[in-house]
Order: sequence, then C-alpha cells, then structure tokens
Amino acid sequence: MSEVLKVGLLGLGTVGSGVVKLIENHQQELRHQIGLPVQVEKVLVRDRSKARDVVLSEESVTLYGEEIVENANIDVVIEVMGGITLAKEYIVRALKNGKHVVTANKDLMAVHGAELLSLAAENGCDLFYEASVAGGIPIIRSLTDGLAADRITKMMGIVNGTTNYILTKMTKEGLDYEEVLAQAQALGFAESDPTADVEGLDAARKMAILATLGFSMDVELDDVVVRGISSVTKTDLEYCEQLGYTMKLIGLADRDGDRVEVSVQPTLLPKEHPLAAVNDEYNAVYVYGEAVGETMFYGPGAGSLPTATAVVSDLVSVLKNMRYRVNGHDGAKPLHKKTLKADNEVFAKYFFRLKVLDKAGTFSAITSLFAEKDVSFEKLLQLPIKGEAAAEIIIITHTTDKETYEYLHRTLAALDVVQSVESSYRVEGGK
Amino acid sequence: MSEVLKVGLLGLGTVGSGVVKLIENHQQELRHQIGLPVQVEKVLVRDRSKARDVVLSEESVTLYGEEIVENANIDVVIEVMGGITLAKEYIVRALKNGKHVVTANKDLMAVHGAELLSLAAENGCDLFYEASVAGGIPIIRSLTDGLAADRITKMMGIVNGTTNYILTKMTKEGLDYEEVLAQAQALGFAESDPTADVEGLDAARKMAILATLGFSMDVELDDVVVRGISSVTKTDLEYCEQLGYTMKLIGLADRDGDRVEVSVQPTLLPKEHPLAAVNDEYNAVYVYGEAVGETMFYGPGAGSLPTATAVVSDLVSVLKNMRYRVNGHDGAKPLHKKTLKADNEVFAKYFFRLKVLDKAGTFSAITSLFAEKDVSFEKLLQLPIKGEAAAEIIIITHTTDKETYEYLHRTLAALDVVQSVESSYRVEGGK
Repeated sequence: MSEVLKVGLLGLGTVGSGVVKLIENHQQELRHQIGLPVQVEKVLVRDRSKARDVVLSEESVTLYGEEIVENANIDVVIEVMGGITLAKEYIVRALKNGKHVVTANKDLMAVHGAELLSLAAENGCDLFYEASVAGGIPIIRSLTDGLAADRITKMMGIVNGTTNYILTKMTKEGLDYEEVLAQAQALGFAESDPTADVEGLDAARKMAILATLGFSMDVELDDVVVRGISSVTKTDLEYCEQLGYTMKLIGLADRDGDRVEVSVQPTLLPKEHPLAAVNDEYNAVYVYGEAVGETMFYGPGAGSLPTATAVVSDLVSVLKNMRYRVNGHDGAKPLHKKTLKADNEVFAKYFFRLKVLDKAGTFSAITSLFAEKDVSFEKLLQLPIKGEAAAEIIIITHTTDKETYEYLHRTLAALDVVQSVESSYRVEGGK
Repeated sequence: MSEVLKVGLLGLGTVGSGVVKLIENHQQELRHQIGLPVQVEKVLVRDRSKARDVVLSEESVTLYGEEIVENANIDVVIEVMGGITLAKEYIVRALKNGKHVVTANKDLMAVHGAELLSLAAENGCDLFYEASVAGGIPIIRSLTDGLAADRITKMMGIVNGTTNYILTKMTKEGLDYEEVLAQAQALGFAESDPTADVEGLDAARKMAILATLGFSMDVELDDVVVRGISSVTKTDLEYCEQLGYTMKLIGLADRDGDRVEVSVQPTLLPKEHPLAAVNDEYNAVYVYGEAVGETMFYGPGAGSLPTATAVVSDLVSVLKNMRYRVNGHDGAKPLHKKTLKADNEVFAKYFFRLKVLDKAGTFSAITSLFAEKDVSFEKLLQLPIKGEAAAEIIIITHTTDKETYEYLHRTLAALDVVQSVESSYRVEGGK
C-alpha cells in the first residue's frame, strides 16, 4: 500500500462534489482512522468547462472513464455518475482490474447487484453501496453488522424523499397532489420528470436492495409490487387524519420463513407508529427482527453531503480492509431461496372510501358483502355529500388477505348502490 | 482456528440467557456469516441449582470465572455479569490470555473503558461493547463505521428505558411521579432501588461512552452533569403539553471544536422533534453530524433478546476478525483532547415555572429582571391559582447561557413578588 491512498471518482454531480468536499475537509479524521491521507486522483466529468463549487486541478479532471478504471495509480473507484449501462461497464472493468468500488447507484444495484457482488468476490475486491439506500442513514451496515445476529422478518421504509415531502405537505397544508408537486419541482425537491419518484420505482429499487440483504434472499426488482402516490387525494388524507392515521409511501418487505412479499404503496400508519412522525424529505427504515424487536433508522435520504458521508464511510471500510488485506469478503451469497407469497398469503388491513347512493339498503348491501367474506370492520364512517343524493362511506377493515381484498374491491364497484370506489389503501402497523 | 468456535459466558442473568438462546436458535445464520459453528463452552453462574429457562449440561456450568478466563479452549469471553470490580478483573485476565472480549457492561466501560481498550489493543484482542449503550440499537457501530466520515457535533439520547417509561406514563395518564414509579416497580420496569435510573446515573454512564466515541475524546463519567427525574411533577408536564413540548430525560453531548458539554437532565423538546415521539421503555439516540445532518437510531434499550442481539453481533464481528486474523485494531485512541465548556459557553433555552403574588407590579418586576440580562421570551403564560392571592407564571426563554440562567434562577427566587421558583428545565431542539 502506498503512502497516499488514491481514489478515482466517476461523476461530479451533487453527490460527487460532496465526496470531494468531505475528503478534503476531513483529512485529519480520515488519517486517524485509516493511517494515511486520501487523495482524489482523477474525476470523470461530462463537461470540463462547467462551473463547479469544488476546485480541481486541470489534470485531475477527465472526460474518459478509462483513465480511472484502467489507472494503475488508483486503488478505489467511487461511482456516483448514475445510470445503468455505462456505470456497470466501468464498475466491471474496475473490479476486473482489482480496484475496490464504492457506489451510490441504486438503479444499478437493484438490477445487477448480485452479479456485481459475485464479480467483486471473485476478484478479491470490496463492492460497497451504503449510499444507494436512504442517503445518510447507515442502514446497509446496520443490516449486515448491527443486526447480524438476528433474523429479520419485516422492514418498512420511507425511502423516497420526494414522495414523503409531497405527502407531508398535502397532509399538513390540505393541498392537492398536483399543487404540491408543482411547488416541489419549483423548489428542486422533485425532478422535472418526477415519474420514477412519484410512481414508486425509486423506492422499489431500494426495497429490492434492502430485502435482498435483510432477508439474505435474491429479491429482484421485478418481485416488487409497486403503486405510486399520484392518485392520492387531499380528501383521502383528511379522512386518514380524522381516523388517527398518517399516509406514507411505504416500501414493505415481509417474510414468513422463505415466503416473501415486497411492495411499495401508499399506506396508512397509526399516528403512534415511529414511521408516522417521519416528515418532509426525511427517510427512515423500520426493521423488525425476531430477537431485537422494533428498531428504526432515521435521517436524510438524499442531498450532497449526507449521501457523501455514506460514500466516504464505505471508503473508510475499504481502506481499513486494505490495511489488513482482507478485502473481498463481504459479498456473501444469499442464504435463503425466496418464494414470492401468493395473494392469499399476504395479510393486511385495508381502507376503502366509497361513494354510495344515500338511500335505505345501501349500508346493509355493503356490510353483508364484507360479512359474506368474514371481514370485520375496525372503523366505519358514513357522511352525507352536500347537495347530492349520495354519501361517502369510509371503512377500515380488520386483517384480511389480498385475494379477499381484491374480490371486495371488485364486487363493491359492481354493486348497484355503490357509485364508485373512490380509493383504497393498505393499512399497516396496528395490532 | 478450530472447527468450532468456543465461547465462555460470564453471567447467566437476563442478557446471558438471551445470548445462549440466540446462539442456539441462529446457528444457521451464524455459520453462514462466520463459516463455522459457535458453541457455548462454559458459563459462570452464581448458583448451580437455580431454575433457568435455558438448558445447559452439568459440566458447562461453573462457579469459578477462572475456568473461563484461563480456559485454553475458549476463544472469546462474553461478560454479562455486571458490576465493576470482579468483571474488570476477569476481562483483564481474559485479554492478557489473548481472548477477545464482548461486554454489555456500561458501568465498567464508562469508568474503565479507555484502560481496557488499550489493554485489548496491546494484546491484539478485540474488546467490543455494543450492548453497553441502548440495548438492541446498533449505535456504537453506527458511530464508528456508519458515520465514520463525518464530524459529529451533537448527540441527544433517550438512553434509559425506566425513566422514559415513567415520563411517558406521567404525561399520557396525568399521574404523579411516585404513583408511576410504584406501578413500574410492580411491573418489573423499575428496580426496587431505582436510584441509578431515576437520578440519571445510568444515562450518564451511557453518555460518557457515546461522547468518548462520537467525539473521539476522553470523556469521563465525572464530566457528565447529571439531574434525574424525581423532582418532575405532573403539573410541569401539563404545562409542557400546553406549550407544545414533551419532557424527556435527555443525555446531551455537544461540542464546539474541542470544547465539550455532556449532561443528563429532564429536557423539554418540541413535539415535532424526532425524539419527542420515542415513548414507553424505548430508547433512541439522535446524532447530528456536520455533513450528514440529523439522524436518529431507535429501538429497545434493554431486555433479554434485544440486548443479546447486540452481544452476538459483536461476537460475529470478533469471529470475522479472527477468520482474517485482524483482531485488536478497533481500539483507536481518542483523536482530540477535550476541554469542558464553562457555564457561559453552554447555551440553551429554559423553562421556568414561578409561583408569584397576584398583585400589580409582579409581572413587571419579573420581566425587567430578564430584560436586564438581555434574555427575551419565546413563550409566556400567566394563570391565577384558585383560592389563593397567587398566580403561576410559565416562561420559556430564548437562548441564553447557563451562567445567566443560574443568575436568573437565583435572583427570581429572591424577588419579593416571587413566592417560589417551582421548577425549571432546559429546552432543546427548537430553532
């Protein structure tokens, strides 16, 4: 090992600049921990002339990733460029060249994580990815090390800051989805094309990564059932409030032996649940382990410096491993084979909001449908709709299975007395 | 390294039994992680004939710690017996014999941690102590690894379950301290001698450990300024509620460069603060890092299996290190020399509850005292006391220093118009 640890950086966007700053500003701490100074040797950028808030010498900037992944002076490659194809190509070449890799790339890890971790192990290299899930929260490490002795059976994550910001704003200020989304875009909290965030895909990627690791199973992105928040209305949120719940976009990973369910969907949580108090752009991951019980990890899910702390803490781990020559041992293959749960094995409570005809027999027609399927009510609310011969009925059921839920949804919609099923959501976290 | 990893256990109380169960029940996971089976070879007990909920063979139980710490078959010693003198003696002997040590002993680590960590490093041994703070929450690991790249400047912990249970009960049910304490004792949530918990000493030990680690400074138990919850009244809690605050016993560690403050005291937090929602016997540690910003780690602070998960996750770390022959490298000496802050460097807001004469001039006498010291009010409430010619005044100040706070407290108490300063508390977490 040389006298200076040389790092190559693929990408100099929000996270990349944060990494450069953190390495510069924390030299003393880094040296205390790893015994030698760290230097950013080369940085891949898209445009040499772009104005930046970090100062880099002319020769440390390059337009060619090869100058990093093929560079004999570089020990560790940090990939913060995003995207899948090119990032993967660079990481593969870096690993084959014996370089350790730290990545913040959830898209890549969700899709090619298993393959890349194998490749890293074959080459005796570390491949760490703490920053790919929940930014500054050390959740990957907590799952691999902190809760190493436990058997994790459930995880619920608020793992997308944009949607949490939108739902918090809608709830607190009684605003509509479109209105808050526009504000969030203006403030830079939401992308100009917000699809991946608001439709739950970003959260799904993170849940695939968490479930793979937490359950030690090969959970793939396609295994995640996804529903976003774009159909959530302020009316739904008002009823949630009234009934003592808060709506969050929850990534859920649940297992029962080797039978597993992974989903992302708007979910009602009781106000007392630890996740219910996670507001604005903050993230949190709730983890239930058989032995430890309930734990939760809370923090900033994104942002330049928060995400950079996760990247640099991975870098520190790589460097400690290099010092003792023990890299490449962390990519343990999944212990369990997964089987996805069938719909009749997925249990939850459900919220229904129905628009119904305000006449005799309506209530009874609806309740007998639920009775027929043996589903009882936890909460029930009927309210007239002003100026219409219609009413709203809000139902929160006791626990039932997803097959029954879908049957109820379908059958309710077809009832004569029901004008429409306005909305329905999963409810979690109660007794 | 042998074919079976042999562990010696000092103590078979609540945590010790949990460790035995966890090792037995999670053999498959442990073997997956560390590559070989783990066996509890010998257990130190006080009384051979005591009924237990774990089954151990006759020959694996001993009354003599020597049979563990001097046992050539044992690779790792787990100390869960508690107390200081004898536990320390055993740990010292174990380390000198080249055995790695995992301990859950906060009393010992708070007082002799630095010395024992040095001894471990000298002998090439690991000494891990995740279970000593906040039971099942992997906070030690998060500070050493997860936030390794950051500079931590503030930590606030709810690190004592008994006091959090008592304050939660008092707040939610409007009960007096004595009443709740008696209930908690009856339910086994509080010891028959609750002094160490309710007077804040237990929390102080944990804060000394967290501050030492988080700030990389030699913070000692004596550096912690401590006040318990035994003087908190239900009246205080009612006013907290009314003003939008929740009272918690907060362990605070704050630094400004190398100038540090560590305290444990009943503290008002705004209801929106992440720690305000941590209820009952749960623990949480809020960590502020310069780069990462706000993070929080939440979970069970005590209990047999939760604490055992922390012990066994340390054991897994020891075993991984053994596998790669890299033990004994984690006891880094503190990087910074600490200086304790003087009172005029300690800044906070304060809550005062005063009983005053209900007559003209009272209010003005009080407000001019605050004005004289340039302390303004964030919130102010005056209420008549029924049937007396007296009133209560509740004040929440803006930020001031502790020296000024103490002057105000003293001078208020001496004012003619003030019958008594009924209570006063620190207020944290606002803007």
